Amino acid sequence: MTGRVIEIVERKRDGAKLSPEEIDRIVLGFTKGEVPDHQMAAFLMAVVWRGMDDEETAWLTDSMVRSGKRLDLSRYGRVVDKHSTGGIGDKVTLVVAPLVAACGAPVAKMSGRGLGITGGTLDKLESFRGYRVDLTTKELMAQLGRIGIVVTGQTAELAPADGLMYALRDATGTVPSIPLIASSIMSKKIAAGAHAVVLDVKVGAGAFMRTVREARTLARLMVAIGEAHGLDVTAELTAMDAPLGNAVGNSLEVAEAIATLRGSGPDDLREVVLSAGAEMLYLARRARTRAAGRAMLERAIADGSGLAKLRQLVASQGGDARMVDDPGRLPRAKRVHTLAAVRTAYVARLDASVVGLASVRLGAGREKKGDPIDHATGVVLRAKVGDRVAKGEPYAEVHANGRTGDAEAIEMVQRAFTWGRAAVAPPKLVLGRIASA
Amino acid sequence: MTGRVIEIVERKRDGAKLSPEEIDRIVLGFTKGEVPDHQMAAFLMAVVWRGMDDEETAWLTDSMVRSGKRLDLSRYGRVVDKHSTGGIGDKVTLVVAPLVAACGAPVAKMSGRGLGITGGTLDKLESFRGYRVDLTTKELMAQLGRIGIVVTGQTAELAPADGLMYALRDATGTVPSIPLIASSIMSKKIAAGAHAVVLDVKVGAGAFMRTVREARTLARLMVAIGEAHGLDVTAELTAMDAPLGNAVGNSLEVAEAIATLRGSGPDDLREVVLSAGAEMLYLARRARTRAAGRAMLERAIADGSGLAKLRQLVASQGGDARMVDDPGRLPRAKRVHTLAAVRTAYVARLDASVVGLASVRLGAGREKKGDPIDHATGVVLRAKVGDRVAKGEPYAEVHANGRTGDAEAIEMVQRAFTWGRAAVAPPKLVLGRIASA
Repeated sequence: MTGRVIEIVERKRDGAKLSPEEIDRIVLGFTKGEVPDHQMAAFLMAVVWRGMDDEETAWLTDSMVRSGKRLDLSRYGRVVDKHSTGGIGDKVTLVVAPLVAACGAPVAKMSGRGLGITGGTLDKLESFRGYRVDLTTKELMAQLGRIGIVVTGQTAELAPADGLMYALRDATGTVPSIPLIASSIMSKKIAAGAHAVVLDVKVGAGAFMRTVREARTLARLMVAIGEAHGLDVTAELTAMDAPLGNAVGNSLEVAEAIATLRGSGPDDLREVVLSAGAEMLYLARRARTRAAGRAMLERAIADGSGLAKLRQLVASQGGDARMVDDPGRLPRAKRVHTLAAVRTAYVARLDASVVGLASVRLGAGREKKGDPIDHATGVVLRAKVGDRVAKGEPYAEVHANGRTGDAEAIEMVQRAFTWGRAAVAPPKLVLGRIASA
Repeated sequence: MTGRVIEIVERKRDGAKLSPEEIDRIVLGFTKGEVPDHQMAAFLMAVVWRGMDDEETAWLTDSMVRSGKRLDLSRYGRVVDKHSTGGIGDKVTLVVAPLVAACGAPVAKMSGRGLGITGGTLDKLESFRGYRVDLTTKELMAQLGRIGIVVTGQTAELAPADGLMYALRDATGTVPSIPLIASSIMSKKIAAGAHAVVLDVKVGAGAFMRTVREARTLARLMVAIGEAHGLDVTAELTAMDAPLGNAVGNSLEVAEAIATLRGSGPDDLREVVLSAGAEMLYLARRARTRAAGRAMLERAIADGSGLAKLRQLVASQGGDARMVDDPGRLPRAKRVHTLAAVRTAYVARLDASVVGLASVRLGAGREKKGDPIDHATGVVLRAKVGDRVAKGEPYAEVHANGRTGDAEAIEMVQRAFTWGRAAVAPPKLVLGRIASA
């Protein structure tokens, strides 16, 4: 077997297009442990180098799906999922999943942990004391039937090739590759059994995709892969130059998500939630138009049914649901450093990646896989792009727990802000949408 | 440590120039087992992709040398070494090393095994029953002092990074990279302690380097690296479109080498031997000019002192020296298939790589590392490019031992010949020479 696998590595190294059989051989062989890590690592670097065309990427995704089980959720109706490529302060799932479920569309979402400067939904949900992210497939299905919502971790039975490949990519500098990113995301979505998926592809300084062009390539590829597997997929391109919302850090973001479910969240977060949620309801065929979906979501905010659904979710997965009604019970940092303006000015730019790095220094994110996380720490932005801050007024809070990196984090948050003399318009949030045919 | 090593991999992936410290960290870390195979494999593929400039390649070689011991052979005078990048029918070492030693220049050569279609000097020497290729450093030095010649395998103490890296490259499709090839060859030569080295860089269809341009790049790089380490280095570019000499296969090549030492070898082999040998004597300062060196070699053929030196070498390393005087005692294949011309014609082309592949099918070469080798089998070419073969006359012999691949090998040897109606000139052999300043 090895003799032939090396030929596959060499063919990709030399820029050839691989066949579905070759891709199967390397992906399934690797999953079974027959292809050693070093051959797979060389193969992955060759893919970063030479790329894969759309067909190869679809075959790769298919191999990854077939490396494990594929859930059948049809008995629960048209199930929707939502996925973000990751950004700073991205707590959209925490708001949109309960809202959409409250509007009657079953939501089954498998999330990941945060790595690098972007936080993970699982880490945020674990701010609720006791919240379980390790549901079995049986528990997942039972809960989906009972309350119409589940947000848990990836189980090892689904697309195991992806878990193994991602761990290797993370250790070998082979993460940044559009075909590898697309197949990783879509193999999990397909295996997890949803009928429709809304993808939030983040674009900008605080995201993997730095340009709209790259993001559009990734989005088109993922939509095409989903379609080929019978899923309805819409990708929304949303801006990630500045953090989304005001809070960055686990329990700080949970508190902001709860506020948004109560109707008092920041405008930019609310806008992305309504856009993604309307699309989810539309794809789930609960709303005839996106506008109708949006109105349903607004009602679910106004009548408290979205918040009630979050409470149900947290309770069902073993979390402390009292924290939903009293966010004061969420983990809190020991110290809050308030940054105040030294002169009156307007926020001209706000660098998401610097704020993200600051949150890692504060312990809210991971330097590397397996690092522990501090759920209490993080950053709250009191001013966003376009806002005027008067001299002496606060523009940010740094929530710290007495780490050696705290002073550096404060300095980073200061540096993340660029000030100007005149007001600039707040940036556009939704930059494009690509849907299945 | 791992955190920083991945940054080195990422920097090479992104096309950066690495520092000597970074190269040390990855090479020495890998040798010590601190850098895992999968990270090194990804790094090597990134080097195949992005390359290394001359300075980086020199630093890489230096790290590989410092991964182990460096022999000091100064007490034996100016010791010369010779290295070929590998070609079909390349038995030059078997002839030139004894000749040069017979002319008074001490020759210490560490050779490798054959892999793929090019044979290895160690495998050829093992055609002499009992010949030891695993001399210790102590034995090597004692023999060099006693008889002025030693041809043995690489010891694990010298440039251990190279052995480990080569094994990984072989398994991960990362062999074809000029910086990796140059550093692999030169790290071994430098560590082995020779004062002067003649490199035979093969160019053509039967060699790693397909074009003179590529070969020249590799040659220049190796000469510069050697120079930086205080060695006198000359690289000769020699043609490898057709096999060198007439014999391809281990004992068949040994027999041809013996014939050449007796003055009755094929012209092309004799020419490459005289060219490389003259350069070795010149660099060893045993000859004032290359022409003088050539004359010395011709005398060592005529007076039998070269053959006597081979006899001494074989005996000293435990081999059956009677085989030197009676090549009929060398391993012989059970069957010899003679290929005869179906019509009178001239040999227009002769494809070395196809002949090499045929010899692998016959068991004379390895499909993969560790495969056993048949010392008896191979191919003898009775006609070379430019020769006229009359209808019914033999143009090749296939020496086979009854393997399943025999019929295929015969068909391949037939296919290796391209016939024409008119005589073409035999190809030029020595295509260029690059020497230290």
